Amino acid sequence: MKLLALDCSAVSASVSVWDGERMLGEWFLHIPQTHSQTLMPMVRDLLEMAGIPLADMEVFAVSVGPGSFTGVRIGVSCVKGMALPGNTPCVGVSTLEAMAHPLAGLPGTVCAVMDARCAQVYHARFSIGEGVRREGEEEALPIASLPQRYADVEGPIYLVGDGAVLCAQTAFAEDPRVRLVAEPLRFQRSSGVALAALQAIRRGEMQDAGSLAPVYLRLPQAERELKKRLGQTEGEKTG
Amino acid sequence: MKLLALDCSAVSASVSVWDGERMLGEWFLHIPQTHSQTLMPMVRDLLEMAGIPLADMEVFAVSVGPGSFTGVRIGVSCVKGMALPGNTPCVGVSTLEAMAHPLAGLPGTVCAVMDARCAQVYHARFSIGEGVRREGEEEALPIASLPQRYADVEGPIYLVGDGAVLCAQTAFAEDPRVRLVAEPLRFQRSSGVALAALQAIRRGEMQDAGSLAPVYLRLPQAERELKKRLGQTEGEKTG
Repeated sequence: MKLLALDCSAVSASVSVWDGERMLGEWFLHIPQTHSQTLMPMVRDLLEMAGIPLADMEVFAVSVGPGSFTGVRIGVSCVKGMALPGNTPCVGVSTLEAMAHPLAGLPGTVCAVMDARCAQVYHARFSIGEGVRREGEEEALPIASLPQRYADVEGPIYLVGDGAVLCAQTAFAEDPRVRLVAEPLRFQRSSGVALAALQAIRRGEMQDAGSLAPVYLRLPQAERELKKRLGQTEGEKTG
Repeated sequence: MKLLALDCSAVSASVSVWDGERMLGEWFLHIPQTHSQTLMPMVRDLLEMAGIPLADMEVFAVSVGPGSFTGVRIGVSCVKGMALPGNTPCVGVSTLEAMAHPLAGLPGTVCAVMDARCAQVYHARFSIGEGVRREGEEEALPIASLPQRYADVEGPIYLVGDGAVLCAQTAFAEDPRVRLVAEPLRFQRSSGVALAALQAIRRGEMQDAGSLAPVYLRLPQAERELKKRLGQTEGEKTG
């Protein structure tokens, strides 16, 4: 089963192509350039180098969020565009879950954190000993309240995500259980998206391109501010 | 400090570009195509996409073996070619050590094994808790004698390398300490070469392109067979 996986949910962007459980290639970039300029050329280069035509893909996988609103939309749109012509099945993967998968099999707990600005992170906790299992909800929460989510954890806690360094230096600064993983494992990557998708496929969880949709854990800033302003106006009216 | 790292010591080939401790991009391929056809186009694509000219590189890193005799020579030769014109410093990295680095910081021990055919593996053992430290020698040894190298290990043993699955299914089949890491971490990658090179650079271990040389743990098969034949002839003469 040929699978193409994409991630561009934050600053980094990556694509990887798989034949079943085997990764044939991965292209990863972590530069400030716009995903709309880099993502499709990366897909083209990767498939050309691997010698596999796009039409041979049997599944497309993509991280659907949380993450940058624009980034997530670019990734999901690219996959919709590639999957629709052949009605190819798709798998939408949580960005947070995708980061936990490369660590599967290690003894311990993964704390996946993406910088959501305003002293908040998008967060989820995963047990990874036997497969990857989320413990609790995905949520946007203040960095300071992170440690209480791990009060019951005894073994090592692996910090991943573009909020990992920030959290290691602040909320978890004095915590001996916490390990910052090496740079190449720290950020969301298409290989993690593919691993999460393979687990979902084993559970029979595929969807058509039309139903793929971004998953945001909070409203975009513009909408949050609009809501606040409307709330204030409301308040002024009633006050 | 801009660093370019290469690996093509076995079936997979990869290149990555770094700015200090930060990886800007990585291109990884794991297909049967010849490295002599893929490696330099990968370097070109990566630097073009990252927007960094080759002339800006301040260090080149490459895995110098053990590994495929042809693969290691291609990698070392490419780096010599790129480094010589500007007399750019180089770092030659053990392929086995490069595979241990992405797991640095995790509690446990790394068992790096590359398939050396004839029921042998190229092997080294690493402690990874605080930086990466080799314990014992790098060696070519029979798979069956692998477990005795880990008799004293209590914590988890992470199997990496293109011999990992083979060893997990044979010598370590019944060993509950042993964990097979996820597919994207299992094979030698340029990102691991770069991490090992960064550690070497911090210790001041750089060399010029001219002195870079492959490190084989045993003679090529042709030489081994020649030696055997010569030995037999010798025997016949004296017999």
